[in-house]
Amino acid sequence: MNDDLKALIRTIPDFPKPGIQFRDITTLLLDPAGYATTIDRMVRATIGKVDLVAGIEARGFLFAAALAVPLNAGVLLIRKDGKLPGATIAEDYALEYGQDRIAMHEDALVPGQRVLLVDDLIATGGTARAAIRLLRKAGATVDQVQFVVDLPDLGGADALRAGGVRVDSLIRFAGH
Amino acid sequence: MNDDLKALIRTIPDFPKPGIQFRDITTLLLDPAGYATTIDRMVRATIGKVDLVAGIEARGFLFAAALAVPLNAGVLLIRKDGKLPGATIAEDYALEYGQDRIAMHEDALVPGQRVLLVDDLIATGGTARAAIRLLRKAGATVDQVQFVVDLPDLGGADALRAGGVRVDSLIRFAGH
Repeated sequence: MNDDLKALIRTIPDFPKPGIQFRDITTLLLDPAGYATTIDRMVRATIGKVDLVAGIEARGFLFAAALAVPLNAGVLLIRKDGKLPGATIAEDYALEYGQDRIAMHEDALVPGQRVLLVDDLIATGGTARAAIRLLRKAGATVDQVQFVVDLPDLGGADALRAGGVRVDSLIRFAGH
Repeated sequence: MNDDLKALIRTIPDFPKPGIQFRDITTLLLDPAGYATTIDRMVRATIGKVDLVAGIEARGFLFAAALAVPLNAGVLLIRKDGKLPGATIAEDYALEYGQDRIAMHEDALVPGQRVLLVDDLIATGGTARAAIRLLRKAGATVDQVQFVVDLPDLGGADALRAGGVRVDSLIRFAGH
């Protein structure tokens, strides 16, 4: 399933550091049919009416934007702290060493709006969990998250599911 | 013309520094009809067949991605130097103080492919000019650039036109 899309993902060894096999979606993006198929399958995997598609900076923007038009939804930006011009709310999350912070405009959504969160890839899922906490803090209903690529051995998707969120992904790279 | 879209742009004073009136497109993105209309008008403003839509990190990704599917094109990422995992070519450009560098994968396009460059906003146009130089260095044909917002008093669009590129924008804020 979706092996046609998986073949369009390039693997770059030792990026960003030795031992990491980086799954590079840019080769999928460059393929018009592959990209259109990706978006079409994500649209079809979407359950029910979505008010906003939230994308996580920067690669998540590429899928949130393309999904929003066919889903008749708006696009909500989740960015690194300090990048958004208006008043924001933020959420911290742990990195391997240290921590990072993501933010959204505090007035980006109306409480009760249903938000589909998307990103290009889920590994350990720390950023996605922080994004869900952030969206819920703003009053959003978040019950589905979609990724293009899942690295299942890192457990991020399972952790999200354990938190009661539906998780869909098109492509899985096991043995990571 | 396009006053319906202009009304969806929020102006934030003194961001990122005192004296700058920041034109914030996030309020347009959050509006499903406004965002769909923006993409539709950009599709219609596109002249001829495009192979790839190039978006400049990060807000340019939002428009490049949404345009690519209806244009039956791929998406080419132009990113800050150091963000792309594969071998890149880069181009420097001047900032008010100092300089910055953008990059693309060196194998992202086949020489002769026609690339539509898009970004959310053009001010002085330094980044856009660097992106055009970069794409042409890789062998692309670049004869059209589109922006959602133009700040015409800063002269960026005129400078691009003087270089022989067609420039389209939907919304203009004069008196900047």
